[in-house]
Amino acid sequence: MKILVINGPNLNLLGLREPDVYGGQNYDSLVRDIGGYARGIGAEVTFVQSNHEGAIIDAIHAAAGGAQGIVINPGALTHYSYALRDAIKAVNIPAVEVHISNVHAREEFRHTSVIAPVCVGQICGLGAFGYLAALRFLTEYKVNG
Amino acid sequence: MKILVINGPNLNLLGLREPDVYGGQNYDSLVRDIGGYARGIGAEVTFVQSNHEGAIIDAIHAAAGGAQGIVINPGALTHYSYALRDAIKAVNIPAVEVHISNVHAREEFRHTSVIAPVCVGQICGLGAFGYLAALRFLTEYKVNG
Amino acid sequence: MKILVINGPNLNLLGLREPDVYGGQNYDSLVRDIGGYARGIGAEVTFVQSNHEGAIIDAIHAAAGGAQGIVINPGALTHYSYALRDAIKAVNIPAVEVHISNVHAREEFRHTSVIAPVCVGQICGLGAFGYLAALRFLTEYKVNG
Amino acid sequence: MKILVINGPNLNLLGLREPDVYGGQNYDSLVRDIGGYARGIGAEVTFVQSNHEGAIIDAIHAAAGGAQGIVINPGALTHYSYALRDAIKAVNIPAVEVHISNVHAREEFRHTSVIAPVCVGQICGLGAFGYLAALRFLTEYKVNG
Amino acid sequence: MKILVINGPNLNLLGLREPDVYGGQNYDSLVRDIGGYARGIGAEVTFVQSNHEGAIIDAIHAAAGGAQGIVINPGALTHYSYALRDAIKAVNIPAVEVHISNVHAREEFRHTSVIAPVCVGQICGLGAFGYLAALRFLTEYKVNG
Amino acid sequence: MKILVINGPNLNLLGLREPDVYGGQNYDSLVRDIGGYARGIGAEVTFVQSNHEGAIIDAIHAAAGGAQGIVINPGALTHYSYALRDAIKAVNIPAVEVHISNVHAREEFRHTSVIAPVCVGQICGLGAFGYLAALRFLTEYKVNG
Amino acid sequence: MKILVINGPNLNLLGLREPDVYGGQNYDSLVRDIGGYARGIGAEVTFVQSNHEGAIIDAIHAAAGGAQGIVINPGALTHYSYALRDAIKAVNIPAVEVHISNVHAREEFRHTSVIAPVCVGQICGLGAFGYLAALRFLTEYKVNG
Amino acid sequence: MKILVINGPNLNLLGLREPDVYGGQNYDSLVRDIGGYARGIGAEVTFVQSNHEGAIIDAIHAAAGGAQGIVINPGALTHYSYALRDAIKAVNIPAVEVHISNVHAREEFRHTSVIAPVCVGQICGLGAFGYLAALRFLTEYKVNG
Amino acid sequence: MKILVINGPNLNLLGLREPDVYGGQNYDSLVRDIGGYARGIGAEVTFVQSNHEGAIIDAIHAAAGGAQGIVINPGALTHYSYALRDAIKAVNIPAVEVHISNVHAREEFRHTSVIAPVCVGQICGLGAFGYLAALRFLTEYKVNG
Amino acid sequence: MKILVINGPNLNLLGLREPDVYGGQNYDSLVRDIGGYARGIGAEVTFVQSNHEGAIIDAIHAAAGGAQGIVINPGALTHYSYALRDAIKAVNIPAVEVHISNVHAREEFRHTSVIAPVCVGQICGLGAFGYLAALRFLTEYKVNG
Amino acid sequence: MKILVINGPNLNLLGLREPDVYGGQNYDSLVRDIGGYARGIGAEVTFVQSNHEGAIIDAIHAAAGGAQGIVINPGALTHYSYALRDAIKAVNIPAVEVHISNVHAREEFRHTSVIAPVCVGQICGLGAFGYLAALRFLTEYKVNG
Amino acid sequence: MKILVINGPNLNLLGLREPDVYGGQNYDSLVRDIGGYARGIGAEVTFVQSNHEGAIIDAIHAAAGGAQGIVINPGALTHYSYALRDAIKAVNIPAVEVHISNVHAREEFRHTSVIAPVCVGQICGLGAFGYLAALRFLTEYKVNG
Repeated sequence: MKILVINGPNLNLLGLREPDVYGGQNYDSLVRDIGGYARGIGAEVTFVQSNHEGAIIDAIHAAAGGAQGIVINPGALTHYSYALRDAIKAVNIPAVEVHISNVHAREEFRHTSVIAPVCVGQICGLGAFGYLAALRFLTEYKVNG
Repeated sequence: MKILVINGPNLNLLGLREPDVYGGQNYDSLVRDIGGYARGIGAEVTFVQSNHEGAIIDAIHAAAGGAQGIVINPGALTHYSYALRDAIKAVNIPAVEVHISNVHAREEFRHTSVIAPVCVGQICGLGAFGYLAALRFLTEYKVNG
Repeated sequence: MKILVINGPNLNLLGLREPDVYGGQNYDSLVRDIGGYARGIGAEVTFVQSNHEGAIIDAIHAAAGGAQGIVINPGALTHYSYALRDAIKAVNIPAVEVHISNVHAREEFRHTSVIAPVCVGQICGLGAFGYLAALRFLTEYKVNG
Repeated sequence: MKILVINGPNLNLLGLREPDVYGGQNYDSLVRDIGGYARGIGAEVTFVQSNHEGAIIDAIHAAAGGAQGIVINPGALTHYSYALRDAIKAVNIPAVEVHISNVHAREEFRHTSVIAPVCVGQICGLGAFGYLAALRFLTEYKVNG
Repeated sequence: MKILVINGPNLNLLGLREPDVYGGQNYDSLVRDIGGYARGIGAEVTFVQSNHEGAIIDAIHAAAGGAQGIVINPGALTHYSYALRDAIKAVNIPAVEVHISNVHAREEFRHTSVIAPVCVGQICGLGAFGYLAALRFLTEYKVNG
Repeated sequence: MKILVINGPNLNLLGLREPDVYGGQNYDSLVRDIGGYARGIGAEVTFVQSNHEGAIIDAIHAAAGGAQGIVINPGALTHYSYALRDAIKAVNIPAVEVHISNVHAREEFRHTSVIAPVCVGQICGLGAFGYLAALRFLTEYKVNG
Repeated sequence: MKILVINGPNLNLLGLREPDVYGGQNYDSLVRDIGGYARGIGAEVTFVQSNHEGAIIDAIHAAAGGAQGIVINPGALTHYSYALRDAIKAVNIPAVEVHISNVHAREEFRHTSVIAPVCVGQICGLGAFGYLAALRFLTEYKVNG
Repeated sequence: MKILVINGPNLNLLGLREPDVYGGQNYDSLVRDIGGYARGIGAEVTFVQSNHEGAIIDAIHAAAGGAQGIVINPGALTHYSYALRDAIKAVNIPAVEVHISNVHAREEFRHTSVIAPVCVGQICGLGAFGYLAALRFLTEYKVNG
Repeated sequence: MKILVINGPNLNLLGLREPDVYGGQNYDSLVRDIGGYARGIGAEVTFVQSNHEGAIIDAIHAAAGGAQGIVINPGALTHYSYALRDAIKAVNIPAVEVHISNVHAREEFRHTSVIAPVCVGQICGLGAFGYLAALRFLTEYKVNG
Repeated sequence: MKILVINGPNLNLLGLREPDVYGGQNYDSLVRDIGGYARGIGAEVTFVQSNHEGAIIDAIHAAAGGAQGIVINPGALTHYSYALRDAIKAVNIPAVEVHISNVHAREEFRHTSVIAPVCVGQICGLGAFGYLAALRFLTEYKVNG
Repeated sequence: MKILVINGPNLNLLGLREPDVYGGQNYDSLVRDIGGYARGIGAEVTFVQSNHEGAIIDAIHAAAGGAQGIVINPGALTHYSYALRDAIKAVNIPAVEVHISNVHAREEFRHTSVIAPVCVGQICGLGAFGYLAALRFLTEYKVNG
Repeated sequence: MKILVINGPNLNLLGLREPDVYGGQNYDSLVRDIGGYARGIGAEVTFVQSNHEGAIIDAIHAAAGGAQGIVINPGALTHYSYALRDAIKAVNIPAVEVHISNVHAREEFRHTSVIAPVCVGQICGLGAFGYLAALRFLTEYKVNG
């Protein structure tokens, strides 16, 4: 099973950026951990990280027909990118939205996701574990759902 | 490790209640599945289900000193029970909020959680798997976090 | 035909409480009048009055399978109890919301009902007659509807 | 006792218009049913249906001194006609607002009535029965109230 | 194919009224141009202009069964006439909303249309051409759509 | 100088309608008083009273070219009739909005006028005197303004 | 009869300040005109102009017992000075609020008056004539009202 | 004089719960202090603490006829329990709302009390002293008021 | 211990101003009562009353270094004077906000205090007793807090 | 005459994406149809489709001096891209906004266009025909406008 | 060139007031620094500091004709003093609004300035340097602008 | 000292775009002026201009470790790009937001900056001088701050 793992704007700075909020693990290490976990459960993961809304939309389009699931942390695009929302809806691949921090305990603007309504579900505040749980859900539970 | 698993109003009707939204699994079966998963990862779970806000608050208070984690699906109390919010904050036990359905894809009033800001994180839309992931996070990742 | 008649918080004080708003009839007399009317149209009514949101939800759950209709005056729960709303939706029994006073002519917060969207309809401002009309509708009109 | 029964814009299309919302009964049949019911309880009813806000206001003015009650389904005027509201208040005849469908379960704009605060009460969602109950209330209960 | 072309309040003053906003063409000339265009594409058009909401609703009702399309410039009724909205929905004839000026570039209250949600589409800011395009769409494209 | 004096919905009931709010003078007496005052200052007044928004718009259109001023008490149309607003703007005759009662001391919805922004000014709360002052302003001050 | 005529912040700059909005007459000339008019109708007027909210409140307090009416143009204090509102209410002298310009045709914030609800009425947009009409109303009409 | 002292949800955890917000004194000690103070001023106090909205309403109902005053800290129910508000209004016993912390300096949702409008007054931010002052007011000042 | 007791706009009219809201006691008598109470508990009080926001701010600044507490009834400045708020915050003297009437039971605008968030606490609705309780708190409880 | 035809994010998926909303025609076919129509009316069209806001802005800048009109379907950028709005305003080329679906009949967020206020007009809900009408308007009507 | 430098409420406490927000420099030192800088660039500066809105308005009026620029830090008046706004607009002297702290990073109410729309521009968050930059702009750039 | 000077969408059109708002100077000339000024104060500036949100974020990331300050005019991204906000916060380099025009005197949507809360400060309305002042602040004042 093929899963596309997308990380949006500023997630390349993981570990450098506000470590008290996002933890000390950097992006490469996150990718390795997710990759290792994926192999363990027999999933094939591709990673995309971009600070460009358009590039993420392109990547989602490219996944149509090739991926059976999407794990996406849209970063701050979560709160305003209706174009990203439309892209996920358009390709019709089950997607899980993940946030490393608990967005509900932060600034007001982070409480609203324009992406979540077109996803299967959302996980936030569980750190890197959120990606693993999303992966597990998509590969094992969703397929039988 | 001891975990309190709380299900709020109307979750006792699981399987009977809007199965297209909440799935066909009933509450007893959900409890069995969570219990089985907990045993597998060496966690000790206690279950509480109540339609009474006050009873849930009492249960949270009673858990203080005894439980190391809370998995809570507050049902519709999610959207207005500031008393429940205060209870979770008061006992200072790490809690994960779980929703079976994707609340962000339903009525407007379900998009806001007054509970989530005092939890570690939130999982929604992943069905019964949400409880399992929350359990896993609390027992394995949080303790080392 | 079996009908559950529910009166929410503070309706036990009927007759004592703001008689210029709610009239001078007390709760026992209201119950007698509704009961008498029900017998006259061949309906079997059960009465529940509680100041506890949870107890009302429990009663609604208990009615599933047993009652063919619900007449409910949720009192002030009308304006915030999403848990009560979920309960009515969950049991899938036709319900009519009744208010003794004209809620639209009182404080702003009384103009919104979170319960009405999951009921068949709503009657307000017609005093005790509202209960009788709801009963009549459920037993005679709804069944043929 | 004389009662004026008013039906506002588009209610002349009853039976043709969105039958899944408003039912299959047409306006003439509704008038016949209400008329028959009125005769049965000794009330004298006059019917007005108009798509013109001004014509309805004129009719209400004309009723002053002649009618002892008004049953009014203002149609969509419910949501914005402050002129209609002023008319009802001005003539000081007890009025009951009726809606065939459950306006609270439909579009947001239908949840607010600018008319209801100057009526005695409101009935919605009970179909044609709403008119009958309003009639009954005005003739039998209100007069003794 | 029969099309009803409706112009709402104040459009009879076209050419006289704020010519910098609405252009210098008067209502009669507009009617002639639309009529000429209609003949050219084989459509039969009937014109209604009224400053009375009720008269416009009556005209729409009368069109039921007779017209296959409606081109409507509701004037300022666009922004509050839910009764007009209900009328268009009730007769179930495909309608296109037209505005001569670009309502989105004018006062805030003109940015919202309560009519558009029940129409097939909306054209604004293209002057008299908007009517022609709406006519063309209804006669040529919609029928094959 | 010719002045059109318009009274909107329900003002024909003056004296009968909520006399504590609107005073005890009836419409005919108001017309006589305004007429007398007009003669005294050499103005020629025409009166229109209608409960129909459309009829008032028609009257305003008809005044174009004939009247040099408008005194208008739009009644409850004040708060929502954008069509009336457009009519006043379209004919480009200086208009003064008058309210008998102090609308700012009444219900919230009466605090907003959609008509006033296209008038020269507004007078409220001064009873019948408001009409006289408006007349005086239009005939004596405005012309020299 | 004694009337206190109050002009709030920036009205001392009349004639200099945005003459296209407020006209070219200066404050001294305004005072002379009002004074002359007052003499003509047998009223005794006292003038206060201040840019200090507190000084205006002091002046209103000082008028208690001495003045039978207040004509007040609160300038921009109109929109936020609840202290001024309380002062007018406290002394219980009938007051008329006057604005030289049509505040409803200007910035959004000028559409709301926190003063008007405690006045007898409000006049705006009629230039200096507004003061004269207010004076006339208070001396001649109000006393008989 | 008999006074009912009510503490709502989570106040049983006083001393344990966010001591930087609520202070270090626990509930039993609070009760002792209030009791001692009451004896000193000759008042008879009864204490109720519950996490159940319904139980608090029941207690208020039970106090009707028996208590001459209520001191109530509704905890988080302050912000949404319209049922509690109705209960206080229904029994018509003078009540003072007390909050240990300064709710106005905390989260936005704590700034609004739905209870205070039906109380005599409110004290917040003065710690345990708030209860004593409320007691003093009810026993000494209110009775003579 | 030195305490500054501030009364804002219109409180000099106490006893004259809306006695049904504020009671019949006048300002001088209030000052005497507070002074007497202060002497009884060994506090030294200074009184300031002004209708000028600026004068109150000046007085607060002057108190820095000299007073250990502030009791302030800001009158209507409560609802908009951010400058007063900044003054209290700037001098860093513990302040208690007092209102004679229950502001929560009056107009909507009185429900919000921009001052309270920078005070220690707030008392409202307890009449003159509120000042005494505030004094007691500041002298006896706060110092040991 | 040269016209730039811009299609924003996700419009490359036309035909694949929610065909019940957007129809079954794919992007290439749309381009062919528009191109053919353009040739028929003697217009020269250039096509740009991008999922990148920045790329669309670049294309608009590049059109300055070269194109006499813009037909733009901004996709979801319609609802938030103020940068796109500024670009259209900056180049000062007449633009028509086109939407294939009736945005007013879909989610709330689609009802607002931040682009339309700087365009000449807007067409929505008329499918591919919207592009053709926009083209026609720009080439034939606008030039003579 | 003459420049008026205005500092509003509480800025006299600079250095004493929340030094972590406003820095440790006191008002006298600020005045000296600005004065020195002004001399260096050949500008003549006059300083006004007041806690009285009215006094600041008076000072602005007095500057008309004498000053060619205003540098104003309105303190908390920034957020509500429409009277101050009108004063700046009335005298028509170019003004620059300055804030020492970054108001956008503080409480919500500080994000809105009612003064800025009538100024040339605004500088915030740059400490005392903001005054210098404003001075430089007004003397050197604005005059040539 | 190294400073990154960023100009967002449409600023490349400076001088061409709405010269009455933005002035007649073009982007190249702006760059030369800033560069010259920077050399004069011993600062090393790098310029980035892009219409792509992603490219600006990339540039900010690239500056981490290399630049000691950022001067940023985000163009219209100011009002919605939370991703840009996160980028500035993530790299933790002091940034000053600059706008050429006075955004507070333009459309409502330009009054809110989602970027400013994570900057040191903001300058608007001072034209090109804003960039120079920001540069000066960052190089001379901030370093000593």
